[in-house]
Amino acid sequence: MDTSAGPDAPGTPDLPYDVFARACPSRRTLEHVTGRWGALTLGALHEGSLRFNELRRRVDGVSEKMLSQTLHALERDGLVHREAQLVNPPRVDYRLTPLGRRITDRLLALMTSVETGMDEVVAARVRYDERHGDPVRG
Amino acid sequence: MDTSAGPDAPGTPDLPYDVFARACPSRRTLEHVTGRWGALTLGALHEGSLRFNELRRRVDGVSEKMLSQTLHALERDGLVHREAQLVNPPRVDYRLTPLGRRITDRLLALMTSVETGMDEVVAARVRYDERHGDPVRG
Repeated sequence: MDTSAGPDAPGTPDLPYDVFARACPSRRTLEHVTGRWGALTLGALHEGSLRFNELRRRVDGVSEKMLSQTLHALERDGLVHREAQLVNPPRVDYRLTPLGRRITDRLLALMTSVETGMDEVVAARVRYDERHGDPVRG
Repeated sequence: MDTSAGPDAPGTPDLPYDVFARACPSRRTLEHVTGRWGALTLGALHEGSLRFNELRRRVDGVSEKMLSQTLHALERDGLVHREAQLVNPPRVDYRLTPLGRRITDRLLALMTSVETGMDEVVAARVRYDERHGDPVRG
């Protein structure tokens, strides 16, 4: 990423990975991290280890299938650790790896900045819709 | 967001917005910010004001239609300012608003953490695919 750096984004022009490049594998990982369900799953696991059904309740609106796909992608990227407990009934716990925690720290900071800015966002939407007549959906 | 806080994520349990709640408008804005094209568009504009075609070149792989939709959503959320210059031929510049800049600072920190972790991600994928046989696509 050769963009100029903010206070939390020390410039790292020597990195071989660049999310702006279409073919770079980092773009795919960024999508796993920031995709709707990926982001909420990582955020939920930041609080600690969770079982599948606990995660489903925490990530409001996710289907079983989507959560399962999301967890597999995050596990494959080395961001989430899946651990089958040898208990009866069987139990599977998910938790962040150290890498997953480093990335999720940043993700939560981003989520907080969005939540903190929402009053401004909502006001901007009202102004935009007044200027443009028909409200844009989305 | 009532998750425990990392060093960059001061806990903000009193905020009325919660990206984990399905109906909260902050979830939609988070998706605009972190969606594939939204994230790359904001990142590109962090370097400074850009015209539409400059943005298209910078955000490798985006179509004209998707970039246009992305910019409208970001403008409506008050993150991007669109300014038609009174010149001939006509010219439209896009730049981050102060709110857009605050959020993009965090976004870039996240992107950098993903790029920095990619060696670990790539190694994790190899291990995962060895364990699971058929490589998962994605």
